[in-house]
Amino acid sequence: MRLRHKPYAIDKLNDNPNIVISNPQAYRGVWKDVFRNEQPIHIEIGTGRGRFIYGMAKANPHINYIGIEKFSSVIVDVLDKQLEEELPNLKLINKDAKDLTLFFADGEVDRVYLNFSDPWPKTRHEKRRLTYHSFLQNYEQVLVKGGEIHFKTDNQGLFEYSLCSISAYGMLLKYISLDLHNSEFEGNVMTEYEEKFSQKGNRIYRLEAKFQNEPAQ
Amino acid sequence: MRLRHKPYAIDKLNDNPNIVISNPQAYRGVWKDVFRNEQPIHIEIGTGRGRFIYGMAKANPHINYIGIEKFSSVIVDVLDKQLEEELPNLKLINKDAKDLTLFFADGEVDRVYLNFSDPWPKTRHEKRRLTYHSFLQNYEQVLVKGGEIHFKTDNQGLFEYSLCSISAYGMLLKYISLDLHNSEFEGNVMTEYEEKFSQKGNRIYRLEAKFQNEPAQ
Repeated sequence: MRLRHKPYAIDKLNDNPNIVISNPQAYRGVWKDVFRNEQPIHIEIGTGRGRFIYGMAKANPHINYIGIEKFSSVIVDVLDKQLEEELPNLKLINKDAKDLTLFFADGEVDRVYLNFSDPWPKTRHEKRRLTYHSFLQNYEQVLVKGGEIHFKTDNQGLFEYSLCSISAYGMLLKYISLDLHNSEFEGNVMTEYEEKFSQKGNRIYRLEAKFQNEPAQ
Repeated sequence: MRLRHKPYAIDKLNDNPNIVISNPQAYRGVWKDVFRNEQPIHIEIGTGRGRFIYGMAKANPHINYIGIEKFSSVIVDVLDKQLEEELPNLKLINKDAKDLTLFFADGEVDRVYLNFSDPWPKTRHEKRRLTYHSFLQNYEQVLVKGGEIHFKTDNQGLFEYSLCSISAYGMLLKYISLDLHNSEFEGNVMTEYEEKFSQKGNRIYRLEAKFQNEPAQ
C-alpha cells in the first residue's frame, strides 16, 4: 500500500476516542461494553483505508466490527467515513496487530478477516506474513472455539504459502476460490486494492479456514 | 479424454502379460517379486496414454512404477511404448482403480500420482472424483505410513475441491503451486493432456499431500 504522509492524522485519530480506541488493552474482555450489546465481534487485521470493514459493518448491523491498522495515514480515511456517517457497530484500533492478544481476551472474537496482507515474499521475512504460524496462534487464542479466518489476496505466492501454513497448523480449509470474481461466491465486499488490481486482470484468491479443537501440531 | 475405439486393444494387452498384469489381485503383497527387486513402488491412477509414467520410469530407474488405467483403448498406447523400449521398472494394470485395495496390500505402495483426473463437475458425481474421501481412504490403506499423493490438474474446480477434501481428511498439504509452468518446480514430467492444455493458456495446478498418523476425521 502506498502511504502518503498525513501530519494531521494522529491528532485527528486522538480527537475521536469514541471511534478510534486509543487504549485497546483497557477493553480486553469487555468489548461488548464498548458496543453496548451482545453481538458477535469480527475483526480485520490490516484495515487499510477501510472500504471492506465499513461496507461489512453497513451491510451487517447485527455484527460488531473492529478494524486494526498500524498506519495512521490510512486508518484516518476510515475515520473520515465514520465522521460522515457513523456506524455504531464499527470501531477502529491504530496499533500493530502483533499485540492482538493484549487487546482481546481468549475467545472474545468471532471471526478474523485478512485482506490483501503484505506478501513479504522473501523467505527471511516469512515470520512477518499474517498467516505465519505465530499469527495463527494469536488468532486461535482470541477466537471462539471453532472460529474462522477469512482471507483474500491477489498474491499467488502468499496464497500458496497460506494454504500450506494453515494446513500445517491443523486447521480445516472450508472454502477455497482460486478466482473469486469469476466464482459463485455471493456478497463479496471489495477492498480499494481489490477493485484496482482485479481491474488490471489479477485473479483474487479467497479461503475460509476453521480452527479445530485439537490442532495437529 | 477422447476415446477412440480400438478393437485390437484387449487382445494386444492380453498378449503381453509380462508388461500388463491381468490378475493384479494375485500379486497383492508381493509386487516386489514382480519387479524382482526391493525398490519403492509408485503408482499412477488414470495413466491414460502414459507419457507421464513412462517418462518418470525412464528418468527414475531406482523406482518401480505401476500405471493403472481402466480404458484399454488408451493404456494400449503405453504398452506400445514399452514394446518399443521396455523399461524393467514399469508395469501396467488395465482395471478400475476403485478396486485398489484388492491389488495392493496395506503399506505396499510408496506414492500415488493423480494427473488430470476426470473433474466430475456435477455435485451429484462428487463420489467419483479421485480426491473424494473414499478414494483417499483407499490411498491411505495401500500407502506406507506418511505416504504422499501428488496431484496435477488444469481444472480449477477440481483443484479447489481437492484442497478442501484433502484438508477435511486431515492430510498435510506440503506443496502447492497455482501455476506450475511458471513456478520454480523442477523436473516436471508432462502428460499429453498437460502439454496440449497448457499450450492453450490453461494454468496447471499441482499439490503434494501427506497422510498423517492420526487423520482428523
